[in-house]
Amino acid sequence: MRLVTFRDARGTRIGALDEAGKVLDLLAADVALPRDMLGLIAGGDAALAAARAAEDKAPVAEGAVILAPIPRPVKNIFCVGKNYHEHAKEFASSGFDATAKEVVPEAPVVFSKPPTSVIGPHDPIPSFLDSSNSTDYEGEIAVVIGKGGRGIQEADAYAHVFGYTIVNDVTARTLQHRHRQWILGKGIDGFCPMGPAIVTADAAGMPPRLAISTWVNGELRQRATINDLIFGIPTLIATISAAITLEPGDIIATGTPAGVGIGFAPPKFLKPGDKVRIEVPGIGVLENPVA
Amino acid sequence: MRLVTFRDARGTRIGALDEAGKVLDLLAADVALPRDMLGLIAGGDAALAAARAAEDKAPVAEGAVILAPIPRPVKNIFCVGKNYHEHAKEFASSGFDATAKEVVPEAPVVFSKPPTSVIGPHDPIPSFLDSSNSTDYEGEIAVVIGKGGRGIQEADAYAHVFGYTIVNDVTARTLQHRHRQWILGKGIDGFCPMGPAIVTADAAGMPPRLAISTWVNGELRQRATINDLIFGIPTLIATISAAITLEPGDIIATGTPAGVGIGFAPPKFLKPGDKVRIEVPGIGVLENPVA
Repeated sequence: MRLVTFRDARGTRIGALDEAGKVLDLLAADVALPRDMLGLIAGGDAALAAARAAEDKAPVAEGAVILAPIPRPVKNIFCVGKNYHEHAKEFASSGFDATAKEVVPEAPVVFSKPPTSVIGPHDPIPSFLDSSNSTDYEGEIAVVIGKGGRGIQEADAYAHVFGYTIVNDVTARTLQHRHRQWILGKGIDGFCPMGPAIVTADAAGMPPRLAISTWVNGELRQRATINDLIFGIPTLIATISAAITLEPGDIIATGTPAGVGIGFAPPKFLKPGDKVRIEVPGIGVLENPVA
Repeated sequence: MRLVTFRDARGTRIGALDEAGKVLDLLAADVALPRDMLGLIAGGDAALAAARAAEDKAPVAEGAVILAPIPRPVKNIFCVGKNYHEHAKEFASSGFDATAKEVVPEAPVVFSKPPTSVIGPHDPIPSFLDSSNSTDYEGEIAVVIGKGGRGIQEADAYAHVFGYTIVNDVTARTLQHRHRQWILGKGIDGFCPMGPAIVTADAAGMPPRLAISTWVNGELRQRATINDLIFGIPTLIATISAAITLEPGDIIATGTPAGVGIGFAPPKFLKPGDKVRIEVPGIGVLENPVA
């Protein structure tokens, strides 16, 4: 099942995507359901079963505008840096990494993006907010936590996954470098496009079979699979939750593959008018113009 | 005015501290008021004026337990690293800084602590969650944002300050170093004691006259004033808000002075049974035992 948050004349609520990518209006299906995605996730198995029951009889929502699946997370989004081998190399070579000298990290490098950075599919990425003119894309597969917890073991980690979505970890490279810690370079308003859908864990396979590709203006820049991660999903969940309680609806962006703009010489930064398209088959396409 | 969040048999709500440190039950004063601190802050000048009117006739809340003034921030707390000269030196010397080599940063170093790390006065700091046994204290003055905004100029910054509180930026040093970015070492559950009160901006002076002292088991470890900051409050607000929208109730912990545990040789890490006491005259005392 692919779940979305959408808006139409009657407000903002949850829906599902059908095979053709049309939005099904789950709340019009006469099944008791939470109105928003965080409520659905917090509702656990019962709420998800209700959403499935609603999907079978839900009408298409004409004129639906798809938003980020979780438009306002209740805390910052956890993100992972340098989590693909080839990307770790290109980042080390770029000169924009102000942290330790090693290329491949010995432990997951985790930072965050505030809720105010989230935008939906087709919303413009405001590169004009990056005064350093060094805006870069990072296509990423993101994990959405279902059942929360602390001290989650790797062997149990997938039982805590509600599903998967796409995040573009847009980054102002000069700010990322200048401020050493990364939230200022990565937390800019609109620098976290998310969506279009959350594919539920059961539909993604166990372990999930997910591949990601990123294009800029139609040119393929990134391609990898979730199996290429240095620190896989169970390790990330176990590492973060070792001492930090994960809550339903928490988001973990797992890191970006090689092929970002600073991987080129000279760097290929984003400029107004560009289009970034990230596809994960089974989730959908997250496309955003650059403003 | 010193505002608090407190709990008694009738629930959790806002109050004020009187001169003697007793909690006044603002909602019992027959003045229309938001029930929680985020509502009060979002209510702007009118809500604050109502709180002042309530203060004059509010009865003492017997048996009140003071909580963190904002028990659940709506996003991660912004924190600033290496923002006092002598602390920047001791941190550089300690070997626990995995970021750039310079001692004094050329620009503010900003990271975050998740809402799940917040605890109140007298709540135990769970050092047992730090598997690396390197838990350290960091007494800090924190700014609470009133009026939100993006692109706030330094000259206008104080107009966006609701008030000031105390934060203990408790840190697992080994994790801070191992993971390069700091959220895992600093975001542990219970590693953000906050309180006891928010002193409103008008009562703190303009610019604020605030001095901070930290004791561990009665031994003075840190002492500084807000004037000793490398990057002062206007610079921090302008730097963060340059491209990130600050919202009412956002918290910025301004950094810790010299005298943390890793400033000693060998380091003086916290251990169960210790007591950390941080005082800022005008705000109060934030004391927490270590568990």
